[in-house]
Amino acid sequence: MQKKSCQFSSKKVDYYFDADFTMLEKLAGKEHTVIITDENIFQAQAKKFKGWNCIVLKPGEAFKVQATVDSVIEQLIESGADRKTTLVGVGGGVVTDITGYVAAIYMRGIRCGFVPSTILAMVDASIGGKNGVDVGIYKNLVGTIRQPDFLLYDYSLLKTLPDAEWINGFAEIIKHSCIRDLAMFKELESKKLNFYKKDKSALGKLILRNAMLKSKVVEKDEFEQGDRRLLNFGHTLGHAIENMYELSHGQAISIGMTAACHLSAALAGFKETERVVKVLSQYGLPTYAEYDHNAAFEVLKKDKKKERTSMNYVLLEKIGKGIVQQIPMNQLQTLIQELPA
Amino acid sequence: MQKKSCQFSSKKVDYYFDADFTMLEKLAGKEHTVIITDENIFQAQAKKFKGWNCIVLKPGEAFKVQATVDSVIEQLIESGADRKTTLVGVGGGVVTDITGYVAAIYMRGIRCGFVPSTILAMVDASIGGKNGVDVGIYKNLVGTIRQPDFLLYDYSLLKTLPDAEWINGFAEIIKHSCIRDLAMFKELESKKLNFYKKDKSALGKLILRNAMLKSKVVEKDEFEQGDRRLLNFGHTLGHAIENMYELSHGQAISIGMTAACHLSAALAGFKETERVVKVLSQYGLPTYAEYDHNAAFEVLKKDKKKERTSMNYVLLEKIGKGIVQQIPMNQLQTLIQELPA
Repeated sequence: MQKKSCQFSSKKVDYYFDADFTMLEKLAGKEHTVIITDENIFQAQAKKFKGWNCIVLKPGEAFKVQATVDSVIEQLIESGADRKTTLVGVGGGVVTDITGYVAAIYMRGIRCGFVPSTILAMVDASIGGKNGVDVGIYKNLVGTIRQPDFLLYDYSLLKTLPDAEWINGFAEIIKHSCIRDLAMFKELESKKLNFYKKDKSALGKLILRNAMLKSKVVEKDEFEQGDRRLLNFGHTLGHAIENMYELSHGQAISIGMTAACHLSAALAGFKETERVVKVLSQYGLPTYAEYDHNAAFEVLKKDKKKERTSMNYVLLEKIGKGIVQQIPMNQLQTLIQELPA
Repeated sequence: MQKKSCQFSSKKVDYYFDADFTMLEKLAGKEHTVIITDENIFQAQAKKFKGWNCIVLKPGEAFKVQATVDSVIEQLIESGADRKTTLVGVGGGVVTDITGYVAAIYMRGIRCGFVPSTILAMVDASIGGKNGVDVGIYKNLVGTIRQPDFLLYDYSLLKTLPDAEWINGFAEIIKHSCIRDLAMFKELESKKLNFYKKDKSALGKLILRNAMLKSKVVEKDEFEQGDRRLLNFGHTLGHAIENMYELSHGQAISIGMTAACHLSAALAGFKETERVVKVLSQYGLPTYAEYDHNAAFEVLKKDKKKERTSMNYVLLEKIGKGIVQQIPMNQLQTLIQELPA
């Protein structure tokens, strides 16, 4: 086990890497904790949940909606949860997003921790305090920014992770390397997914590196006035097409990153689109895809990053160096219409 | 107009006392502002809202629920509200609670201001950042603590305020005097409601005094670890019976304050119950009432202030000096059963 801590604006967050699930009992006693998880994890990891008070959600992004929040709150009331209760989300990004959101609003805020169970959640979704639910086709339209109290990383949870979910997580890892970490990009270029699946030590190092990369970015800019926006690389167009076409998050942002590379070439002199596309493909991610560019732009206009007549768009100057550029909406529309399919 | 400011943990809040509604345009431009109000205010003050983008709610506590929040969010999406939009709640506590809550969660938080339209909202509900909605019979079970950016006090809004609402507001004013301000209690003893209704200057001073009293308490203890809890005087039992019997908030906490005086006599040597009861009556508030003490205790057990086996209860040592005392739940049950009706 390796402990790290990050100091955010109103809270210190403790990270327990390479830890065992049973350690949870030290961080949150069984008596005053409610675990939120989903049916898949609850069945796959049945033993781990023995003796814990659990709320089990239906799995999938389709249930990351207010109705699920309403139902969780009803169950918390019934179970007698009070201000001293700790909520622990055990699962992927959907579970940790809902758990963090409910913890932020139940009785105006109760203690909360995460045990991420997917690569995506371990390196990205469970870090940084963003939580919330989707509203119609608009992802995370409602939510808060509120840090959890702790994160517990038990890599044994990855044993039952489907291939598609490994690929999903590596999309965010590649994103991190593109915006901030050329050395990691080079490592990724030289390996394949199977290498990390087999080499636990290399995987553990990669997860810790990514979790800390994101945490450091958020630590310096928790409320997204500056560098935190870099983490949206590939996400603007990605979010727009994710729900439209029922793509996985990784697939959607991979297509979004490819598009952002092309915008970067047009607006920021970026010359390494092919190299990024090659790594994305190498990890099983789609890059070019046919989609309705006009419809995507219509959804994208509702993105939270829009500021009236322009959009803050994340581009690459070079691999390892992301930048945020304001693009006027009409120019963005043209650029998106002209993207290669 | 008199401007005051308070510095809370993450935000400075500006107060504009004795201001005119038209000043709102300086604080939040018409183009990028959405006003939330209710049908009563919208009709009574139609002229004020001309040219403003408004969301009009059905009036009353019955609509302080998630379904209303859902509907407001849908309307914000439709109107194209983005991260730069300011939400302004014009109304009583229900309107400002919902507005503050929606502003806290829409796109993970947008700018917000309040124009309180009732005495209760002016001296209490719109101050301190607590927002949220009721869940079933549990008041404010869901919400956040997040300060507004500004408060604008236009006393002309009080012209159409019904008598019952004046009385409602004075319940909180008497509460403030009981926990913190003996001099104000004495002033209240020497006057009647009609005096304040007629003397605008005295009313303005009283409102400012109460708004600042509450703000100072919250400034020092925003997240209610200490003195902020004093503001719950009369509210523990009050909240329990408010929804059970469809009492107004003022009536409920008046009965709650009377009960708290009796508990204070039993546990903290308080000797002035009759004096408090007299002032409450003088301002048209009920003090003793028949209600199901056992049923009230069952609801009270779900109060946010409960801590497993005890409850943080606000008592009076003397008038002007509130204290917080932990009362074991079984002792509290007996005390409440034995309260005079």
